[in-house]
Amino acid sequence: MDFKELRRFFETHDDYLILTHRNPDGDTVGCGFALWNILHDMGKTAKVLNCEPFPKRYDFLYEGYIESSFEPKTIVAVDVADKQLLGDTLMQYADRVDLCIDHHISNKHYAKETIVDGNASSATLVLYRFMKEQGIPMTDIIAKCIYTGLATDTGCFKFSNTIPEAHIAAAELMAYDIDFVNVNRRMFDIKSMGRIKVENIVIKDMEFYFGGRCTVICVTQAMINDTGVDPAEFDGLASIPLEVEGAVIGITLKELKDRSGFKLSVRTTEEADASAFCRQFGGGGHIRAAGCEIKGTLAEVKAKVLAAAEVLFADER
Amino acid sequence: MDFKELRRFFETHDDYLILTHRNPDGDTVGCGFALWNILHDMGKTAKVLNCEPFPKRYDFLYEGYIESSFEPKTIVAVDVADKQLLGDTLMQYADRVDLCIDHHISNKHYAKETIVDGNASSATLVLYRFMKEQGIPMTDIIAKCIYTGLATDTGCFKFSNTIPEAHIAAAELMAYDIDFVNVNRRMFDIKSMGRIKVENIVIKDMEFYFGGRCTVICVTQAMINDTGVDPAEFDGLASIPLEVEGAVIGITLKELKDRSGFKLSVRTTEEADASAFCRQFGGGGHIRAAGCEIKGTLAEVKAKVLAAAEVLFADER
Repeated sequence: MDFKELRRFFETHDDYLILTHRNPDGDTVGCGFALWNILHDMGKTAKVLNCEPFPKRYDFLYEGYIESSFEPKTIVAVDVADKQLLGDTLMQYADRVDLCIDHHISNKHYAKETIVDGNASSATLVLYRFMKEQGIPMTDIIAKCIYTGLATDTGCFKFSNTIPEAHIAAAELMAYDIDFVNVNRRMFDIKSMGRIKVENIVIKDMEFYFGGRCTVICVTQAMINDTGVDPAEFDGLASIPLEVEGAVIGITLKELKDRSGFKLSVRTTEEADASAFCRQFGGGGHIRAAGCEIKGTLAEVKAKVLAAAEVLFADER
Repeated sequence: MDFKELRRFFETHDDYLILTHRNPDGDTVGCGFALWNILHDMGKTAKVLNCEPFPKRYDFLYEGYIESSFEPKTIVAVDVADKQLLGDTLMQYADRVDLCIDHHISNKHYAKETIVDGNASSATLVLYRFMKEQGIPMTDIIAKCIYTGLATDTGCFKFSNTIPEAHIAAAELMAYDIDFVNVNRRMFDIKSMGRIKVENIVIKDMEFYFGGRCTVICVTQAMINDTGVDPAEFDGLASIPLEVEGAVIGITLKELKDRSGFKLSVRTTEEADASAFCRQFGGGGHIRAAGCEIKGTLAEVKAKVLAAAEVLFADER
């Protein structure tokens, strides 16, 4: 389906449910509400759904959003690469998605029609291209939604998926009232008290090996239980060990729920290969970010990991 | 002086000292080495100086840099708004700066010729405009230097000084081998072990008032002495208290060296006025970031600050 056909699709359908992925981020939420506004401006009826209530920090994207009750006739998923990502309460729609708009090269093509571009930095960038090509009118709120998705998925233009077009789009969207300072503060700077507590604990106990070139943080099930913080706050800590000056390989050990071993998340600078490191333990991933699982106690797992790291630095000499 | 005259200046002068400001950041260093490369490519002799050795984390900007000894004839300062910012060892040049290239509206015009544009997001953006207008050839290393200054001073396109042109320039510079992922990692993600220790201490002891709407961190001279960390690592902590979800006013108290009182750095969201808050104590600043000094012990100062904060939240009801 090309953008001309997409426009025709929107014109000829109505009563939309717009589905976003579980653990929603600024791209799926931004894309959902951008699309709601586009459809609303075309005189269509629509509703944006997530398997759970949207987190409060996205409330600036609902500006002008009205929810009415209607019998859904058209199901559209945004930024949802796999129907499993819809989450429990939305799984009822999984096999009847009419259209999926996405930017994950890994998209499973579970929808009847799929518009996917793995080269786009965000799902909202796909929608932006569509709007530009088809002359769909831009508004302040749509611009804010599109910018939010773009900033979120590129880590505010820091990640390798930041293509020049992402910057060009940002420049163009700044012609609208998007208050990007506030958007980025909400997306990147604000942390919950629980998260602050968790980061403080793991950083305090961070371990340094091989002259600080290898840094390790550990999360045990006991720690998760003891802090009394929402276990979700213990997700996404993997970038922390590599934030230490001089670190070449940053390793996060997280105990499996059944306590039979640990999940490793490995991050490296250009001086080491995370994927090769994890392959030794039956895992894999990208050259700078990879993962694996190792069975055993913390001491056993740590011994195996450090032995592998030692080889890494021995090879370098 | 316009860009045509600037080009003429470069063509007719030689043996340059390029001066950067003390506590160097990515913009002054980026601008310095970008200019060195421009001059070098024009067949000129030049040297980039700071009052101290450049921190190691900027070493990716020295690529291809050669330092020869020569009798300096032309002094250029980059991103230096005030000659006081040159620092001790460079003060000998303070009164004989021939040219200053800057983007601070507050520039003191201490140089014989000054090119300043307060609207430019970074000093490197001023240099980039010059290169484009005058058709100066771009190279990979110059592009990397210019991008580094741009990313540094805009907080990676997050701060309010990010103008659309900053994004356009970034998009254009990405046509060169700038490895922006690595640049941004070095500029934004990496912290020294000392800094990590310091952040951990102040965050652990962060205080929450008025339902978490007011957050306070304290740095005493005793803490600075006890940690054994370079005192400079205690600078720039002021953004931390406002990173807590729900915080409206984030206050950093730092004890004065003579222990007679505290320096306050106040940061606010759109719901409070930092400048008005600090004016009560004889200080001032911007609406979202301001400062002042209050004499007294920690307990006395804290009592005054919290009384002022209480009024702030009482007014809101």
